[in-house]
Amino acid sequence: MAIVDPSSRLYEKLAANVREQIDARTFRPGDRLPSVRELSRSKGMSISTVLDAYRLLEDQGFVIPRAQSGFYVRMNIRRKTEEPSPSNLQSIPIPFDRNELIEAMSAAMGRDDIVQLGFALPNPDLLPQERISRIAARLARENPESCFSYGPVPGNRGLREQIAQRIFAAGASVSPDEIVVTSGCQEALCLAIQASVPRGGLVAVESPCHSGILQAIHLSGMRSIEIATMAGAGIDLLALEEAVMQGKQTGDQISALIVCPNVQNPLGFVMPDEAKQALVDFAVDHHLQIIEDDVYGDLVFEGNRQKVLRAFPGGENVILCSSISKTLAPGLRIGWCISRNRFSEVRRLKYALSVSSPTLPQLIVSEFLSNGGYDQYLRRARKAYGASLARVSDTVIRSFPPGTRVSRPVGGFVLWVELPAGTDSSVVYSRSLAAKILIAPGNLFSAQDAYSSYLRLTTSFWSPRIEASIMAVGHICRMGGNRKTL
Amino acid sequence: MAIVDPSSRLYEKLAANVREQIDARTFRPGDRLPSVRELSRSKGMSISTVLDAYRLLEDQGFVIPRAQSGFYVRMNIRRKTEEPSPSNLQSIPIPFDRNELIEAMSAAMGRDDIVQLGFALPNPDLLPQERISRIAARLARENPESCFSYGPVPGNRGLREQIAQRIFAAGASVSPDEIVVTSGCQEALCLAIQASVPRGGLVAVESPCHSGILQAIHLSGMRSIEIATMAGAGIDLLALEEAVMQGKQTGDQISALIVCPNVQNPLGFVMPDEAKQALVDFAVDHHLQIIEDDVYGDLVFEGNRQKVLRAFPGGENVILCSSISKTLAPGLRIGWCISRNRFSEVRRLKYALSVSSPTLPQLIVSEFLSNGGYDQYLRRARKAYGASLARVSDTVIRSFPPGTRVSRPVGGFVLWVELPAGTDSSVVYSRSLAAKILIAPGNLFSAQDAYSSYLRLTTSFWSPRIEASIMAVGHICRMGGNRKTL
Repeated sequence: MAIVDPSSRLYEKLAANVREQIDARTFRPGDRLPSVRELSRSKGMSISTVLDAYRLLEDQGFVIPRAQSGFYVRMNIRRKTEEPSPSNLQSIPIPFDRNELIEAMSAAMGRDDIVQLGFALPNPDLLPQERISRIAARLARENPESCFSYGPVPGNRGLREQIAQRIFAAGASVSPDEIVVTSGCQEALCLAIQASVPRGGLVAVESPCHSGILQAIHLSGMRSIEIATMAGAGIDLLALEEAVMQGKQTGDQISALIVCPNVQNPLGFVMPDEAKQALVDFAVDHHLQIIEDDVYGDLVFEGNRQKVLRAFPGGENVILCSSISKTLAPGLRIGWCISRNRFSEVRRLKYALSVSSPTLPQLIVSEFLSNGGYDQYLRRARKAYGASLARVSDTVIRSFPPGTRVSRPVGGFVLWVELPAGTDSSVVYSRSLAAKILIAPGNLFSAQDAYSSYLRLTTSFWSPRIEASIMAVGHICRMGGNRKTL
Repeated sequence: MAIVDPSSRLYEKLAANVREQIDARTFRPGDRLPSVRELSRSKGMSISTVLDAYRLLEDQGFVIPRAQSGFYVRMNIRRKTEEPSPSNLQSIPIPFDRNELIEAMSAAMGRDDIVQLGFALPNPDLLPQERISRIAARLARENPESCFSYGPVPGNRGLREQIAQRIFAAGASVSPDEIVVTSGCQEALCLAIQASVPRGGLVAVESPCHSGILQAIHLSGMRSIEIATMAGAGIDLLALEEAVMQGKQTGDQISALIVCPNVQNPLGFVMPDEAKQALVDFAVDHHLQIIEDDVYGDLVFEGNRQKVLRAFPGGENVILCSSISKTLAPGLRIGWCISRNRFSEVRRLKYALSVSSPTLPQLIVSEFLSNGGYDQYLRRARKAYGASLARVSDTVIRSFPPGTRVSRPVGGFVLWVELPAGTDSSVVYSRSLAAKILIAPGNLFSAQDAYSSYLRLTTSFWSPRIEASIMAVGHICRMGGNRKTL
């Protein structure tokens, strides 16, 4: 089972190739690009491959078609902007206390009158709901007994086999017997932490990282220590080594490290393979338990499925956490925690926490993964998310104050935005909410106040209303986001 | 919405009345009972009420019908046996470390070749699976969007309203806004403990109690202290007071108390209303947070729905945990944690632990509770569980060694058995498992070894194979359960 078939790889490569030419200004905004026929001849590729490549670029917001005339470079192509810079961090454990913020955001989450740019929710229009509902109805009708009775603690066997197959496509061989099915990736993270860190122990995290990770650590009675992570490179191994050494000296050792190498949330980058290998080597050398959050792993826009850390030599003991909440159906709450050497402990904790995951959702996901056309669906979703991310990004660049920096995500559906120095994103958050727009202020992504001039926008949706909302947030940033004006 | 309608109460009262006469030897084994017509006349009740009463007694194993002749007292009526005695307990916190046992039992749980008398599983033949499956299929077909997307963190509103209605029938007025829907009662207990006890804190429990409670405490990083509980009376308030006082003196205070007043697991009793009120008063006086496990509350065999502690004056802050796993469908994993004063904390923990419960199972349960004939279904289930419990109990009394004591549960589907002194139930457990019969040894119900001559049997099923298996366990107790023979 391949995630990307050879033909799709070809058109993606071609698109990347054309994009390089656009970036290099070989083709400038407004220029006509080579005709489909020309490009097909010069590259030795089929007409349909070239058309697919142009359509991908169109979806990504780089080119526009003109009737009877061909494809042109868009005029409002995104300007080159700086990516957000890393922040100054204290490398000491700090309690994560954002309860008020999280509660206020949660309360705004379900409301139809509020534009939802705060939580990393998939676009419901992209989810294969019709197909899932047909599967669900059939399963419920055909075998009520197995749908509604207790299943095994680690989860349905068929589902675990399907998960193992997906992980194989991400480069790692895992046995279904290493997998515990969980209530989403969040429960998987809680189990992984509790299975590998002594109570009260220290867990290193990337900074910034999504609040679920920090909540899982602090809920479990552990403490977090933040290490800067950089787009394109990943966690700063020098800073991590310093923290590890200091822990050894003081007797307050770091037990585990949680990272998100494929589409880091909120930064959106993928660690290069060499950086992944270096991280695995580091963990082996320093006896650090790596916990990998791979929840966006299937949503890298272009190219092959990126590898998980377990695929690298020395990565056998990495605990891998993920779910289908970003791809298939968040409401089914199906995730997994995969561990070779801590499996028994993870299973034991799952049993003590919630006995087992509900049966029917497991059967639905198992059936969809085996027969539902998951790969085909993913291709469509990746393309669409790439396109809407490009649009949100363009709008931010157009409408936010000068000096704003935006991330350049290679997958997923969030954008990390650094506002000009002195802008307080919690003020922007409050004023946006008053204008019925929910965004995620930078404080959500750290126990420290290091990201108080950052914010995260969800990019999974695109509509005139979304565009207007982003422009409204930009306006708020220009007008009132400055601390001094309050 | 009444749990028991007036007519059913009448026949149950009559059955209880006849049973008293049998217990008092007014009618002896083999005696013919008054004819249906006679009894109808003398009691001023309808023929059908009397027939229902006799059929209930038949189901409970007290009488048998003979064609053309009427109802007779069964020859093998259960002998009067002593109930199990409380055990000597240490009132100090002791780590609960039964992981090996729990894993071995879990591994045996799913196996078809093993007779399942170890876990408190409902009888699948009694579950309304067909009706649930029809509801599930219809919901999935008709509104895929709401079935598979994230719902609110505390759960679906309609479901929470239905739960509040059920609690109202148990004597307490709770608002849907106090309810967090959980992954079964187990997650509810974990949330309740973490919301009300400081990390490392002390939680008092009934002894014996089911292992889920002890696991939830120790998984959460808290410690348990065991207080003897007695059939018919509940937790020993004098012993509890002593422990509370000692905690105050040593500075290691008890923060919370977990009890199971309606159908205690494993003892099967219901606390009388006066004892419930006394317990609530005690908790108020001593600033103890009560956490109530009411998972069997709907499965009391006879009479009205027993009250939950929140129904008593002073009980407003009791945290109430329950689920539909014992009544409707364990595999849906739908439970709830209800708290007036700790709601925000419970909701926060739920979010950090698993974001929210899966949507489709919530909708299924909500629909069943509002339109599925839950009360009617419960009446049938209670009757059937009462009958199979009586049969298991009879078989134990007939086939276990002299000196065996059995509990007299008034609801649920487990039987607590005290073997003659010197019998080691972990040996009985191992030998039974070798004979492909899974039972729960007493050690599962305490962190101490106080119940090493006790065991628990599941009574939800009845068949010749179950009967033979119970007799086989009895044989093992007679032959090899003695510590000295090993």
